Amino acid sequence: MSNHKSREIRLKRRPAGMPQEADFEVAEVNVPNPGTDEVLVRNAYMTVDPYMRGRMVDRKSYVPPFQIGEALQGGAIGQVVASNNAKFKPGDYVQSMNGWREWFVSKGNDIQPQPMIAGTHIYDYLGALGMPGMTAYAGLLRIGELKDGERVFVSAAAGAVGSIVCQIAKAKGCHVVGSVGSDAKAQWLESLGVKTINYKTCGDLNAAVAKAFPEGIDVYFENVGGAHLVAAINNMRPFGRIAACGMIEQYNATEPPPGPPNMIMTVGLSLKIQGFIVSNHYDLMPKFFEDMAKWIKEGKMKWKETIYDGVEKAPAAFIGLFKGENMGKALVRVGPDKAI
Amino acid sequence: MSNHKSREIRLKRRPAGMPQEADFEVAEVNVPNPGTDEVLVRNAYMTVDPYMRGRMVDRKSYVPPFQIGEALQGGAIGQVVASNNAKFKPGDYVQSMNGWREWFVSKGNDIQPQPMIAGTHIYDYLGALGMPGMTAYAGLLRIGELKDGERVFVSAAAGAVGSIVCQIAKAKGCHVVGSVGSDAKAQWLESLGVKTINYKTCGDLNAAVAKAFPEGIDVYFENVGGAHLVAAINNMRPFGRIAACGMIEQYNATEPPPGPPNMIMTVGLSLKIQGFIVSNHYDLMPKFFEDMAKWIKEGKMKWKETIYDGVEKAPAAFIGLFKGENMGKALVRVGPDKAI
Repeated sequence: MSNHKSREIRLKRRPAGMPQEADFEVAEVNVPNPGTDEVLVRNAYMTVDPYMRGRMVDRKSYVPPFQIGEALQGGAIGQVVASNNAKFKPGDYVQSMNGWREWFVSKGNDIQPQPMIAGTHIYDYLGALGMPGMTAYAGLLRIGELKDGERVFVSAAAGAVGSIVCQIAKAKGCHVVGSVGSDAKAQWLESLGVKTINYKTCGDLNAAVAKAFPEGIDVYFENVGGAHLVAAINNMRPFGRIAACGMIEQYNATEPPPGPPNMIMTVGLSLKIQGFIVSNHYDLMPKFFEDMAKWIKEGKMKWKETIYDGVEKAPAAFIGLFKGENMGKALVRVGPDKAI
Repeated sequence: MSNHKSREIRLKRRPAGMPQEADFEVAEVNVPNPGTDEVLVRNAYMTVDPYMRGRMVDRKSYVPPFQIGEALQGGAIGQVVASNNAKFKPGDYVQSMNGWREWFVSKGNDIQPQPMIAGTHIYDYLGALGMPGMTAYAGLLRIGELKDGERVFVSAAAGAVGSIVCQIAKAKGCHVVGSVGSDAKAQWLESLGVKTINYKTCGDLNAAVAKAFPEGIDVYFENVGGAHLVAAINNMRPFGRIAACGMIEQYNATEPPPGPPNMIMTVGLSLKIQGFIVSNHYDLMPKFFEDMAKWIKEGKMKWKETIYDGVEKAPAAFIGLFKGENMGKALVRVGPDKAI
């Protein structure tokens, strides 16, 4: 049996500002047959997420930067095609950080078996039932300390994380308003019972938020930064919490953007602004799956994907994140759902 | 017995930017003899605190604004001179919010008896053993979640709150660095074992903070805002906490000052920025007094006062807060220590 050809996406140069297709390159490599204890995996889907932009910058952070000329990394779901490792057998679905490529060989220590809930699709474990879903859950409940019936504001509300945040809050009886950048996104969220603000057409965002929250905001789930953060702070209730998941507006900034001029309000209103990284909250995983299964059964949890076809489309999918082009989870199909 | 004359300080007009003496006026009023159930109090000391600046602005906040033409309010310690109220007898020391005046009559519901620890002075209960001390204690331990041996940065470190924060942190075995605006302040803090940065002479504040904290900051006690907050965020350790007590640099701003451009770091470092108002943490009072008594006995807790003499000096004392003119607690002596 001959080796497999695998196409992979490499970082060609570090993006300056908004990433461009020319910052990436497609390469084809030979993937050897698996050796002793090794596993051959064919990826089916990979995920693109905003946090990856940070890894394209050469700086110290909580994860090391991507290297020029090397394949990028990120979450992927694939199927074991051949295995010399007792822990995995052909046909097993596995999750790994070996995205941005079609095939790979693993020693078995960087892949995890992916258990499947009946009625779900494998790519759901890169979205609502994966890292983005867990991010929504940990951020809203642990960092945001959400209490039933509170008032919740969510930015990037039609995204992979935001749309789950909205629905968890709805399931907990909250007044939920999400900010989105298109009428199509607003329409989808409204169909889920979420009120929306289209930040591109609403005029003064601060006034729009004030109108949507006449009694103020208890929890703001921060995905955007900039004017959204300023408007949220201006409209928080005493003892309000801001769970800072990301600030996508700033990821491509070439100059440090101005910060919120109203930070002083954190004092008078006893506000908490707290950032978090989902990987520090994986202890919540069992409870997350238990709650999600319940909400899905009750019809309270729905999601959408925007799927790009082919590993060569991964840069476009990634760039689309910053242009607001994707509804729900942005995924790239890099191989067949069933490889064997 | 004739009525008493009492001088009081009134707000003449709302300050624009830095408060000026002309924003205040001295008035003399007749204080009647106490009626049924009433108590006549002669103030000995009053306090001026930065938070009062906020009450001079006509806006909604956690306390209502001061009114033009009326006597200002604020913490004061005085002695009961005459009483028709069974709860108080002549000679009792009482604390109230009826500062900025020499005498007043109370129905007894807005004055609290002030118990005294042996060896303390009555004005200590407006400083280290009063609201500012409690602010330091609650902010550092509850909001800042300080753990023994951590690395602590304090701004306005020679102030009424900051100097107590520094010493609580020292008592807990921490590496403590305070930012101050004069060599005299630095000298005092260094004598207490606190390292200092003179922000007026250090050059690049961010570099100075980085040098003082080679391993980063666990807790930043925020009294100043502006460049201090930016430098602190830049140098926080993962899971660091910022207890936001105040941002004195901004209180006299006529335009909203720019905010910290590095808020995105709250995400990657899992930082918490939390504001607080001491009055929401008075449940810690018994533990505060217990700990303070212990630290005083062990020689680990010292403080200073800057005392202005005469109620007519209250505006100058208040303005001095924003000019960095006071070392330790700024107080105004408005009557004799013992009125009877």
